[in-house]
Amino acid sequence: MRMLDLITKKRDNQALSKAEIDFIIKDYTSGNIPDYQMSAFLMAVYFNGMTDQESTDLALAMMTSGDTFDLSDIKGIKVDKHSTGGVGDKVTLVLGPLVAACGAKFAKMSGRGLGHTGGTLDKLEAIPGYNIVLDEQAFKDQVNRIGLSVIGQSKNITPADKKMYALRDVTATVPSIPLIASSIMSKKLASGADAICLDVKVGNGAFMSDLEEAKKLATLMVQIGKLSGRSVKAILTNMDEPLGLGVGNSLEVIEAIETLKGNGPKDLETVVLEIGSYLLEDAGIASKSEALVMLKEKIANGEAFNKLVELAEAQGGDTSYIHHPEKFEKAKHIIPLKAEKAGYIESMTTIDVGLAAAYLGAGRETVDGLIDPAVGLVFNKKIGDYVQVGDTILYIHANDKGLEDATNTLKAAIKIGEKQNHVTLIEGVIL
Amino acid sequence: MRMLDLITKKRDNQALSKAEIDFIIKDYTSGNIPDYQMSAFLMAVYFNGMTDQESTDLALAMMTSGDTFDLSDIKGIKVDKHSTGGVGDKVTLVLGPLVAACGAKFAKMSGRGLGHTGGTLDKLEAIPGYNIVLDEQAFKDQVNRIGLSVIGQSKNITPADKKMYALRDVTATVPSIPLIASSIMSKKLASGADAICLDVKVGNGAFMSDLEEAKKLATLMVQIGKLSGRSVKAILTNMDEPLGLGVGNSLEVIEAIETLKGNGPKDLETVVLEIGSYLLEDAGIASKSEALVMLKEKIANGEAFNKLVELAEAQGGDTSYIHHPEKFEKAKHIIPLKAEKAGYIESMTTIDVGLAAAYLGAGRETVDGLIDPAVGLVFNKKIGDYVQVGDTILYIHANDKGLEDATNTLKAAIKIGEKQNHVTLIEGVIL
Repeated sequence: MRMLDLITKKRDNQALSKAEIDFIIKDYTSGNIPDYQMSAFLMAVYFNGMTDQESTDLALAMMTSGDTFDLSDIKGIKVDKHSTGGVGDKVTLVLGPLVAACGAKFAKMSGRGLGHTGGTLDKLEAIPGYNIVLDEQAFKDQVNRIGLSVIGQSKNITPADKKMYALRDVTATVPSIPLIASSIMSKKLASGADAICLDVKVGNGAFMSDLEEAKKLATLMVQIGKLSGRSVKAILTNMDEPLGLGVGNSLEVIEAIETLKGNGPKDLETVVLEIGSYLLEDAGIASKSEALVMLKEKIANGEAFNKLVELAEAQGGDTSYIHHPEKFEKAKHIIPLKAEKAGYIESMTTIDVGLAAAYLGAGRETVDGLIDPAVGLVFNKKIGDYVQVGDTILYIHANDKGLEDATNTLKAAIKIGEKQNHVTLIEGVIL
Repeated sequence: MRMLDLITKKRDNQALSKAEIDFIIKDYTSGNIPDYQMSAFLMAVYFNGMTDQESTDLALAMMTSGDTFDLSDIKGIKVDKHSTGGVGDKVTLVLGPLVAACGAKFAKMSGRGLGHTGGTLDKLEAIPGYNIVLDEQAFKDQVNRIGLSVIGQSKNITPADKKMYALRDVTATVPSIPLIASSIMSKKLASGADAICLDVKVGNGAFMSDLEEAKKLATLMVQIGKLSGRSVKAILTNMDEPLGLGVGNSLEVIEAIETLKGNGPKDLETVVLEIGSYLLEDAGIASKSEALVMLKEKIANGEAFNKLVELAEAQGGDTSYIHHPEKFEKAKHIIPLKAEKAGYIESMTTIDVGLAAAYLGAGRETVDGLIDPAVGLVFNKKIGDYVQVGDTILYIHANDKGLEDATNTLKAAIKIGEKQNHVTLIEGVIL
C-alpha cells in the first residue's frame, strides 16, 4: 500500500477501506508517512469528505493509536458527555453529580480551556484541593463507589489525533466535518463509556456557527458512535450567548452549586435536564419522561448537591467551599458594565465575551498559560431583556489584569436595539 | 503574510494577489514555508484552480526563482517551441534547422527523455560528438552566427518549479492544469525567447488523453505567455500513435534527416510545417500562408538540410553521419513484428509503444539511466492501414536487452480489427 495511491483515491472521491485508513493512521503516527503527504490527504478530505463508514474507521484507527480505557470493572452502564465547547458551559459540573445521584455511573475525562472557551478541569481546580490526577484504578474505584469521577487525561490517548490535529491547525484543514467528528469521537471512544451524550454548541460563541453544519457534525458523530457499538445521542444547544450567567472558573462553580440546589438559571438547568434524561434512558435507569421527574426530584431533595460534595471530597477538594460558596475568593474589583442606551439586548458576539473573560485571566492563550480562578463575568441581562440607560448588563470581576481590554471588548460585543430577540436554547436532537 | 492564511484563501476559492504568490514561491524555495503547508496549498489549487492572472503570476514567480536567459544580444526575434511530450516526437530536429534556414533565430534549451517519452538531447547525442553543453555566450554567439542552437539547460533554471514538482509528484497534485501550465511556462519564459509555439500532445501516448483538458491547458499556457508579454501560440496534435515512423534515438535522427530532405513521413512534416509557419509569422518573416511556401521551398532546395549540417558542425557533431545516415550504428537484431490476423490497425496504446522502446534501451526509467542510441522501433503500418496475416507492422531494433518484454508489450498494444479509423493529426490551434 502506498500513501500516494491513497491520496489519489481520496482526491478522486473514492471511499477508502478500513485497511487503507488503518495503514494511513498507523504509518503516519510512526512517522513512515511524512507530514507533506498527510496534509495533501487532509486537504483532499476537506474537499471530498468521507462516508460515515470511513469516518468511523478513522475514529477507531485514531482511538487504537494509543492507550484506551477499559471500564468493564465498573458495574453498570458507564455514561459520559462531551461538549464541543462554548462560553459559560458548566454543564458537566451539574450533570455529573445529578445523574450519579440517579444511579448512573458518570466516568468522565475532561479537558482544559483554550482561547475563548473554558475547560471543566480549570473549573474543578477552582475548588481548593481538588485533584484532577487519578490513576486508572483509583478512577474506576471511585466511580464504583460514589458513581462519578471527573479527571484529566493522564494516559497517552489518541496520539494519532494529536499529531493530525497539530498538522490540520497549520494547513487550513481544521473545518472538515468528518475530521472534526472522528477526532472528537476517537477520544470519546478511547475513554470507554457505554453511553455518550454529545452537546454540540451552535452559534457565535461556538466552534460551529451554522446550524445545518452543526447538525451534520452531530449526525455524523452519532453515526460513528453507533457504528462503533456505543449508545450515542447528540443535542444541539445555542451558543449565541453564554450558557447561564457566570463566565469564569469560581464563578461557574458557584453557579453549578446553585443549580444543584435548584436555584440555577433556567437555560443551564434545561440543558442539564435534557442531557441527563438521555443518559438515564441509555443507562436503562428510566424512560426519558420518568428520568426528567427523577432528575428534578434529586435536585429538590438535595441528593444531587450531596453528590457534588462527595465528588469533591473523593478527589481531595475542600468541601467547605461547596457548602459555603461565599468562601471562594472574590476578585478585587467588581465593576458593573452599564447600558449606554435603552433597548433590548439584541445580540452579543459570544466569542468576544469569552475572550473578554480570558483577558481578565479566566482563560489562556496558550496551553501552558496560567488561570486566575476568581475573575470573570456575571451577567445580569441576557438576550431579549430590556435595559434602561445605566442598567447593569453584567459585572466584571477583575484582579490586576485585562480590565480595560475586557471592558472595551464587551462594550463592542453587546448590541442594544429595538428588537426583542428570543434564543432557542435546544436547536435539535439527533438520536 | 502567513502561509496558513493563503492556504485558507485558496481553499475558500479566492484569488491570490501577485504579492501573495511571490511570497509563497520565494519562501517555499528558501525553505521558510514547509512542504506540509505547500502540499496542502497545492491540493487546494487542484480543487479550486487558479485564474489566468494567478497562473501567470505563479509562472513568473517560478521563473524569477532562478537564473534566466537574456537573449537580447541575439539580433532579431528569437523563437522557441515546446512539446508536452510524446512518442516518436522528433519535431525539434526538423523544425529548428528549417526555421533557421528561413531566417528565424531558433534558440532552444531541450530536455532528456523519461519513462515512455523521448528527449531531444538524447536524440542529438546519437550524432557522434554532438555537444549539448554550451555556455550562455557560446550559445548566443552560435544563434547569431548560424541561426540556431539546441543545448541542455546548464544554469539553475526555475528551482522553485523543480522543488514544487518533486512535491507534487508524491502528493497526487500533478494533474492540475494551472500547475502544469505555470510549470511549463516558467521554464519557457526563463529561456528568453520572444515567440513560442507550444505543441500540446493529446491522446493515449501523451500526458493528456482528453482533448478538452488539453485545450484548457493550451489556452491557459497561451494566456500566461500573452500576460507575460511574449507571443505564444499552441497547436494540439494527436498522440494516439507515434509521430512519424521511428521511435528511438538514432532512428529518429535518421527520420529527421530524411524529412529535411523532403522524404519524411507526412504526419511529421505536417506538424513541422504548422509550427514552423506560426513561428515565422511571429518572427515577422512572413505571413502564415507565405511561410508555408517558404518552408517547403527550404526543404526542396536543400537549405534546411544544410542547416542541420551546420548545427551539428557548430556543436562538434560528426557531420558525415548527417550526410550518410547509413553510418549510424545499427542494432544487432532487426526483427519484424508481424500481424497475427488480417484487418485494419484500429488503435494502439501509444504509451506502451514508448515503453517498449524504453525496454530495449531507447529510454530510461530514472533520470540517470543510460540510453542505447541504436535501438528502437520503425513502423511499417499505422492506424488506418490494412494488414494481411504475416505482414510486418513494425521492425524491432534490439541489442541485448528487452526484446521479449518489448515484443509482448507491442503485441498487446496494437489492436487489429475491422474498423478503419482515421487519426486527426492537428486537433486544434490556440492563437
